[in-house]
Amino acid sequence: MPVYTVSHVQNIRICVIMVGLPARGKSFISQKIVRYLSWLSIKAKCFNVGNYRRQAASHPTADFFDSQNEDGLKIREEAATAAVNDMMKWFNSEDGVVAILDATNTTRQRRDWLLRLCRENSIEPMFLESWCNDEKIIMKNIVDVKTTSPDYEGLDPDTAASDFMKRIDKYQEIYEPLTIEQDGDLTFVKLINVSDQVIINRIETYLESRIVYYVMNLHIRPRCIYLSRHGESMYNLEGKIGGDADLSERGFKYAQKLPELVKQAAGDQVDNLTVWTSTLIRTQQTAQFLQQDKLQWKALDELDAGACDGLTYEEIEKQFPQDFKERDENKYEYRYRGGESYRDVVIRLEPIIMELERQENILIITHQAVLRCIYAYFMNVPQEESPWMSIPLHTLIKLEPRAYQTIVQRIKADIPAVSTYKEKGTSQLGESHASGNSSKNLITGAPIDKKDG
Amino acid sequence: MPVYTVSHVQNIRICVIMVGLPARGKSFISQKIVRYLSWLSIKAKCFNVGNYRRQAASHPTADFFDSQNEDGLKIREEAATAAVNDMMKWFNSEDGVVAILDATNTTRQRRDWLLRLCRENSIEPMFLESWCNDEKIIMKNIVDVKTTSPDYEGLDPDTAASDFMKRIDKYQEIYEPLTIEQDGDLTFVKLINVSDQVIINRIETYLESRIVYYVMNLHIRPRCIYLSRHGESMYNLEGKIGGDADLSERGFKYAQKLPELVKQAAGDQVDNLTVWTSTLIRTQQTAQFLQQDKLQWKALDELDAGACDGLTYEEIEKQFPQDFKERDENKYEYRYRGGESYRDVVIRLEPIIMELERQENILIITHQAVLRCIYAYFMNVPQEESPWMSIPLHTLIKLEPRAYQTIVQRIKADIPAVSTYKEKGTSQLGESHASGNSSKNLITGAPIDKKDG
Repeated sequence: MPVYTVSHVQNIRICVIMVGLPARGKSFISQKIVRYLSWLSIKAKCFNVGNYRRQAASHPTADFFDSQNEDGLKIREEAATAAVNDMMKWFNSEDGVVAILDATNTTRQRRDWLLRLCRENSIEPMFLESWCNDEKIIMKNIVDVKTTSPDYEGLDPDTAASDFMKRIDKYQEIYEPLTIEQDGDLTFVKLINVSDQVIINRIETYLESRIVYYVMNLHIRPRCIYLSRHGESMYNLEGKIGGDADLSERGFKYAQKLPELVKQAAGDQVDNLTVWTSTLIRTQQTAQFLQQDKLQWKALDELDAGACDGLTYEEIEKQFPQDFKERDENKYEYRYRGGESYRDVVIRLEPIIMELERQENILIITHQAVLRCIYAYFMNVPQEESPWMSIPLHTLIKLEPRAYQTIVQRIKADIPAVSTYKEKGTSQLGESHASGNSSKNLITGAPIDKKDG
Repeated sequence: MPVYTVSHVQNIRICVIMVGLPARGKSFISQKIVRYLSWLSIKAKCFNVGNYRRQAASHPTADFFDSQNEDGLKIREEAATAAVNDMMKWFNSEDGVVAILDATNTTRQRRDWLLRLCRENSIEPMFLESWCNDEKIIMKNIVDVKTTSPDYEGLDPDTAASDFMKRIDKYQEIYEPLTIEQDGDLTFVKLINVSDQVIINRIETYLESRIVYYVMNLHIRPRCIYLSRHGESMYNLEGKIGGDADLSERGFKYAQKLPELVKQAAGDQVDNLTVWTSTLIRTQQTAQFLQQDKLQWKALDELDAGACDGLTYEEIEKQFPQDFKERDENKYEYRYRGGESYRDVVIRLEPIIMELERQENILIITHQAVLRCIYAYFMNVPQEESPWMSIPLHTLIKLEPRAYQTIVQRIKADIPAVSTYKEKGTSQLGESHASGNSSKNLITGAPIDKKDG
């Protein structure tokens, strides 16, 4: 039984054509859009022209980007053509829905060429320009590029920065920004200084409007997101799923310890955060000793197990053997009878994610399946893996979004708890993950595609 | 247990200050925003300066609006002051959250005055300009005004139209549109030709971003929305709530008849509509004979009765007497144990409403509580009434949104069904509403505030 989300209302393919000088956050925005859409099960992919260009010119200096440099121009045009060809192949052979063409596309000539190609292939072109004259933002981006771009690998940072600024000047000479006067017949969004000002022109489809709303809500102020499951509950002790049980004695101890863990993780930002819980008792009991502002969200309630609510996995296997098997085979799509699937949870979490993008420091105390979905968004975890991730009890997770990766830290409380992790193909729950001494471990999220330049 | 929605994340008061010439749809947009926010339980009210002005000058001619007419100017300034005073009173004594100041506010001088007043009262000012040079849209608005404005009551339509055009010219002489260059430090949204182009400047709070997203999605193309409950189900026959039952024999007959009813209601638009159902069997069985494109939405599933799912009202009264009483006392807020409240349903329906605003002809086949919520949005039904509305089985409802009202038509199928309507204070279900002959009745939605001018 296929269930559609809003995104599937129209049968449409979109190419988001990025526009803007180097160091304007184009790759950052591109990667965020791909992550957001993929999380919503909308097939999206980024095509970074810089990556294609590097195959022919891996460490170019600024002169390479001079509009009078014919060799450079030829290589860059070939790179653009190769990226666009791969994009078209992807649309056609992999049923792609949203492609992002991540390149400067600073001239009308280049954009007209892309426009023609899109129209010939029945793909809706949508231009997304990042225009910025805020020196602080630009310098921050330059620092990011000089430390992360493969173009400057192994180079002295000052030399890299100075060359990169020269490169920007080369682009600046020929840059033709989008304007309503000259580009009024195109579908475009223009972001001015991140999202200080946004100009939106001829947005027509639902999916375009979602992308626009998403990028409107992005900010680049530093902040952290903290995630925790509720403390161990009476149902956890009995191996039951769902319900609205109280905390166990050990769960209560975790609640008592949580303010200290949060202080340890947040440092001087500890008073500058808001606590979000679900509407279920165990998350509120877990938050009870925190002094920060609190909000309850129905959307953060645990995945609804429907007919299986209150049962143990062994009971489910016995009473609903076919369902038990089906769920193991496709845990993301499986919807409990009268309940929800992981996909359903993602759809109801979408406003939470949008609001998280807008906010600064937030601590979310919620449930295993919900945390898996939120974690998957920030860490770009594929759908088939996310329902199987281990998110143990009595552990605080700190996420620190950076330009091209998210840094993760897991801070374990020294309070034992049962494991609620069920491995595929069994109804047995694993060993406790949270016993042992309080410890920290640092994981760096898989870095996403490097910038173009 | 207070549950917060996204809208309550920030404790903020906003004054949306409309800007634009007469006949630019300002009142239409104002009323839509108020309706949308009220439906989401965000306290919102529109203050229409024209209504205040009419107390002193009820049938003014165009000359009254000349910027050189000192008497006219004085009356208009007094009207603006009175409206603003009432607005401030409302913010303070009724805990208002979003006020809309519906007036032309065409000069920077007037807007500076409002800005100062807002800032003195800790209210965030957000300008919303409707700018339009599409003659077709303007002429349509002029026709609306001349037929609905109390200023032209009893006047010959041609005379009214000609005077109104003169009035627009008077405003045009002194109009200073918002621009990024001159108003770059203000929070504003500028809609150009409805939503062809949108310019967004310094939108900072969540609530502002929601309002912007909502107005971005509005269109004024003519269309209709058709609503139907599923046909009578086996659970309906037994008086049980919830579940995922099949249709009864009579329910199946309704499904067979539905294509004919839809043809009757939609006329030549019958092939130009899309059918939305929930994921529950009874709505899909009801849609089975319709040939139009279909989409399933989890968000359209019936209100989740949690622990009471599958029970009759009598059983609920017996097993959960306290809950039964509480629900009758505040049906909108009451959340079934482990289930949902009407408020919860409204929150999950929000994306459906947003998508309905974007779409054209849609037929929704869903459930009693969900239809009440959707109907309440379009017909501006207060929260305390909406859970008690009668939405009988085997009846097709046609909603036709017009500029200042929604026209409703109920088309009953000649197929009897049980009543599922429970009156307050009883566990008995009412008599069948849908028996008798196929008939139509026409209800006009309570007209909303008249335009200013």
